[in-house]
Amino acid sequence: MANCLVAQSGGPTSVINATLAGVVKGNQLNQVYDIVYGGLHGVEGILQEMLVDLTHMSEEENYVLRQTPASALGSCRYKLKRSNTADFERIFEVLEKYDIETMFYIGGNDSMDTVAALSEYAEAHGITNHRFVGCPKTVDNDLMVTDHCPGYGSAAKFIANTALQTWLDVNVYTREEVFVLETMGRDAGWLAASACLSGIVDLVVLPEVAFNKEVFLEEVRKSIKEKNKCYVVVSEGVRYADGTYLAAGEAKNDGFGHAVLGGAGNAVKNLILDSGAAKRVKVQDLSTAQRCHATDQSFVDVEESFKLGLSAHMRSADKGFTGMMVGVKRVEGDVYNVEYFATKASNVANHVKSFPVEWMLPNYRGVAKEALDYMRPLIEGSPVIRYKDGVQQYVVPFYMRKK
Amino acid sequence: MANCLVAQSGGPTSVINATLAGVVKGNQLNQVYDIVYGGLHGVEGILQEMLVDLTHMSEEENYVLRQTPASALGSCRYKLKRSNTADFERIFEVLEKYDIETMFYIGGNDSMDTVAALSEYAEAHGITNHRFVGCPKTVDNDLMVTDHCPGYGSAAKFIANTALQTWLDVNVYTREEVFVLETMGRDAGWLAASACLSGIVDLVVLPEVAFNKEVFLEEVRKSIKEKNKCYVVVSEGVRYADGTYLAAGEAKNDGFGHAVLGGAGNAVKNLILDSGAAKRVKVQDLSTAQRCHATDQSFVDVEESFKLGLSAHMRSADKGFTGMMVGVKRVEGDVYNVEYFATKASNVANHVKSFPVEWMLPNYRGVAKEALDYMRPLIEGSPVIRYKDGVQQYVVPFYMRKK
Repeated sequence: MANCLVAQSGGPTSVINATLAGVVKGNQLNQVYDIVYGGLHGVEGILQEMLVDLTHMSEEENYVLRQTPASALGSCRYKLKRSNTADFERIFEVLEKYDIETMFYIGGNDSMDTVAALSEYAEAHGITNHRFVGCPKTVDNDLMVTDHCPGYGSAAKFIANTALQTWLDVNVYTREEVFVLETMGRDAGWLAASACLSGIVDLVVLPEVAFNKEVFLEEVRKSIKEKNKCYVVVSEGVRYADGTYLAAGEAKNDGFGHAVLGGAGNAVKNLILDSGAAKRVKVQDLSTAQRCHATDQSFVDVEESFKLGLSAHMRSADKGFTGMMVGVKRVEGDVYNVEYFATKASNVANHVKSFPVEWMLPNYRGVAKEALDYMRPLIEGSPVIRYKDGVQQYVVPFYMRKK
Repeated sequence: MANCLVAQSGGPTSVINATLAGVVKGNQLNQVYDIVYGGLHGVEGILQEMLVDLTHMSEEENYVLRQTPASALGSCRYKLKRSNTADFERIFEVLEKYDIETMFYIGGNDSMDTVAALSEYAEAHGITNHRFVGCPKTVDNDLMVTDHCPGYGSAAKFIANTALQTWLDVNVYTREEVFVLETMGRDAGWLAASACLSGIVDLVVLPEVAFNKEVFLEEVRKSIKEKNKCYVVVSEGVRYADGTYLAAGEAKNDGFGHAVLGGAGNAVKNLILDSGAAKRVKVQDLSTAQRCHATDQSFVDVEESFKLGLSAHMRSADKGFTGMMVGVKRVEGDVYNVEYFATKASNVANHVKSFPVEWMLPNYRGVAKEALDYMRPLIEGSPVIRYKDGVQQYVVPFYMRKK
């Protein structure tokens, strides 16, 4: 029997470790591999042979791992370039040395590209004893083919609940006031749209459509006139027709060619104040908390992330299973249900699934019933979170443990 | 039998409505008053006779009210000035008209001053049929005499958990990085200090002591040198020795003579980047969410807030009970326990209880064991939160209901 390796990459989510827990538990339930290695800090750590042994993880640790936010194995933003042959050779050298038959890579867009690139390299070089399997995760919910992405449901639940709570907060005073909630979402509006699940959002601004300042400010004025308040949700990635980000002043670059955004909320605040559409504007930027506030995990999200790990592990027993990503398919019917399936990682890599324009109501007035019906089941239920002295229990990240 | 009135004032908390629920339930368990009126928008609404009848609230609504954040009766920042005799006359006119014997006022510092002022006015004018009882609430935990303030425990629980979660998030990458968590706390460091309950905070900056930029930056450098990371918590109210706020650029005034703060986190970020102490700094301003994220309520906090309402109601059966605030007293012993007691509202009004300087470790290195022992029981436990479709249930604010 050979071994397997599981690693994580990209931005954290509240449930990314549930998929890791699923792979580990899968091998305990049905042993396909001798050793389940964890690779620290994604491909960056694998290149340096930073591996830990996860094979005999206790049931207790496996449970707490599921509620531990942010990659317990560490992450990286290291991009494996197809032109960099040395990196590929080195990775296969490590896989060979540790007799690793299957490498599971949990991540988003870029990670699926890594899975595709490694399996293509193997095929081109006639290598059949090392295989690569992708497991999706991203709070952005912007991966193709899969119905939705593990990590999205929990972020959406935090956002929807925080929207409701801050709306209750801003309404207690009779004064004229706009509240602006800023969410993540570089290119896709899924996170901002999820705030609409609260039922209280007046205006939601998504990155899929060029921002029309005049239309937006007119809607703010109408809301203020009607009820002295306006609750606005804005995605960090909103752009004007010329491609300039609302948050242009703060845009930087993360090395992947992605702009590092933030500040769309304050940009909206300034627009409103400058135009005189309202006298007072408060901004809440949900920032990092929205992707790691695990005390608000969605039960559905944790369960699906865990089962996706189980499914990926089981499928990998098939010696021909490589270059694939395991996704989630929604089963048609009156009751929400999903199945797991596999698709080529290259179908997912380097694409973005936008929030459908036809699900956006005119003039930023929210999202259509189809959107709410799609999102609602994903935030359903609350797992039993284990606490110690009022603070959630967590697994000490493997990359922090002393050798 | 006469009636009573309960109203809320000041900034919201996650559990301010639990005290309201306690007063209402108290009268159902032990009828002291015919009608329990709710006054909308604090004294501002009472001046306009904006009253609702809460007497027969259902058990279901009472339960959901306890988990509904932000004043369900609405709030105000209207300051009752002792010189404004017309306001006093008008309030007593309304109390007389609705046969209100006792007015319960749930709020902070300013609200206790209102309770004191109204009871002084009554005494000075020989009025004995209208009485005034204060119930404390504030996330800031800065009221005198009471051991702690309802609302603080839940905010502290949210802050401590979010600190842990964002710490896990920022650690996944190997790169040099500082994370700055900004909390509320105009004059008192209780909220910022609560982040230390997570056990992960490297540096905490409280408003009680003048900010020493050099010492702080030196500590950041040490942390970066040691582990490439530094987790900083900063209170919005931090000032330099000359009294200037770190967030000076954004300081405004709220009409009470209080500065409206925000931006201390970004100020710290700029200090660090400008000094070269670290190359990358991320800021999370917890903003409004920290005082209303009721899905993270502390069980102890909700229970105490509710019981404080019960206690205030029961005590008010005593015809001499006026101008008093009901507080929480910690009972000595190995197991955390509290009693409720009464103190003159004037003992509390217009004072601030600071975080003890002797509980601060040198060089921003956290807080002493005494502080942790004090705070820890207050964030203990999680109530059963009722959800509908993944979003917490809430009581529609009484001020929003159609007449």
